Amino acid sequence: MGKFIVIGERIHCISPTIREAMETMTPEPILKRADEQLKAGATYLDVNIGPAERNGPELMQWAVKLLQENFDNVPLCLDTANRKAIEAGIQVYNRAKGKPIVNSADAGDRLENIDLAAANDAICIALCSKAGVPSDNDERMQYCQEMLERGMGLGMEAEDLWFDPLFLVIKGMQDKQMDVLSFIKDLSDMGFNSTGGLSNVSNMTPKHIRPILDSATVAMAMYCGLTSCIANPCDLRLMETIKSCDVIKNNTLYADSYLQI
Amino acid sequence: MGKFIVIGERIHCISPTIREAMETMTPEPILKRADEQLKAGATYLDVNIGPAERNGPELMQWAVKLLQENFDNVPLCLDTANRKAIEAGIQVYNRAKGKPIVNSADAGDRLENIDLAAANDAICIALCSKAGVPSDNDERMQYCQEMLERGMGLGMEAEDLWFDPLFLVIKGMQDKQMDVLSFIKDLSDMGFNSTGGLSNVSNMTPKHIRPILDSATVAMAMYCGLTSCIANPCDLRLMETIKSCDVIKNNTLYADSYLQI
Repeated sequence: MGKFIVIGERIHCISPTIREAMETMTPEPILKRADEQLKAGATYLDVNIGPAERNGPELMQWAVKLLQENFDNVPLCLDTANRKAIEAGIQVYNRAKGKPIVNSADAGDRLENIDLAAANDAICIALCSKAGVPSDNDERMQYCQEMLERGMGLGMEAEDLWFDPLFLVIKGMQDKQMDVLSFIKDLSDMGFNSTGGLSNVSNMTPKHIRPILDSATVAMAMYCGLTSCIANPCDLRLMETIKSCDVIKNNTLYADSYLQI
Repeated sequence: MGKFIVIGERIHCISPTIREAMETMTPEPILKRADEQLKAGATYLDVNIGPAERNGPELMQWAVKLLQENFDNVPLCLDTANRKAIEAGIQVYNRAKGKPIVNSADAGDRLENIDLAAANDAICIALCSKAGVPSDNDERMQYCQEMLERGMGLGMEAEDLWFDPLFLVIKGMQDKQMDVLSFIKDLSDMGFNSTGGLSNVSNMTPKHIRPILDSATVAMAMYCGLTSCIANPCDLRLMETIKSCDVIKNNTLYADSYLQI
């Protein structure tokens, strides 16, 4: 098994600092967040430019070039509802450290993002939902199949679809948590890659609880075979847990210094 | 599923303070450690009096009465190689809060501790080993069967055998960790209770790493269905992880205050 992949989520236009930097194309705040996340152990960086209806393609190309030129072609996850912006980003993307990731397709309105990934030899995050939260794992698997057929029909490798089970908020959906984990196990047993927005689980819980709950979740999910997550790598407890689970799973070799690596 | 059970391991004659308190039958150091562990969330307290060849029965009876009288009949895990001391302890044990636990039997020299548990309507920790570390899960399961047959032949309920897979040290046995977890899953799928000395995993690793590694291990093991562990409940990170996994598994109801409960 390969080492677990963390996609750093902190370059996101929901942050006022990042939004302003994107609106004014000011490099510093974006470079700072990239640097922090890479030092903390992120492999990929997510670049969420929001809907970006005005200047999506231009903005995404600027961000991709900015990050890859400053951080040795860091691999990126291109995150926007604006399809033309993703395509434009891929045009200037350097693949030296890994394929770009399209974030994201689903089995509904965003199914065509799989076509986009297929046409551009990109990885695609494939959310196992159609409209809203899937009611059970049969429904999740149905959507997984639909997206798999779409992608493979267009020549994608199955390993380039990273299926997202859709992590659910514990406040209100506590009784569904084990189902999500069990679905990750099913994906893993079939040899598929997986990812997801881990911190959904702790959404709306008190701030001091979030790293604790997210860490417990990621450990259980990694046992089930989760291969990646979209998370905040600056959450030290989370990264310590991920590194420890990689050691327990024998994905990385134990050394007394393994938390520093 | 019931809530995960933590057996507090800190009343152990390997500690110089506790050894001296046991040698001189001085209550305070023992009561202090009991109080700390119960406040931190232990359900059972392990009472390890060592081989206690000189005065085992007398010492165990003293310890059992001391702890149960001061802590509202706290349930105890009687831990010694001296069988007569365990029997003596059970004679004065109050079952109001739970059966006593015999710690421990195995499929080899200590098989007769199952007889002792059966004769005294006690729970028995059943270590899935015979002589040394089992080489694989087939061997673990063989020992599990032997102990199960022995206990059930003597009228024990299967649920009163708490099978211990034997957690292995990561330094040197890194590639065996997933086997141990997988065995816990097998035990759980068969409906058996399980427990074990969790901190074996992090034995010989640097002190600051132990809570991190133990926490990652317990989360994965709880996903697999581990129902109990013998651990230090004063390890805050470990207890936070256990409480979080109980919430994720829907064993306890989420509340914003769940870490304080």
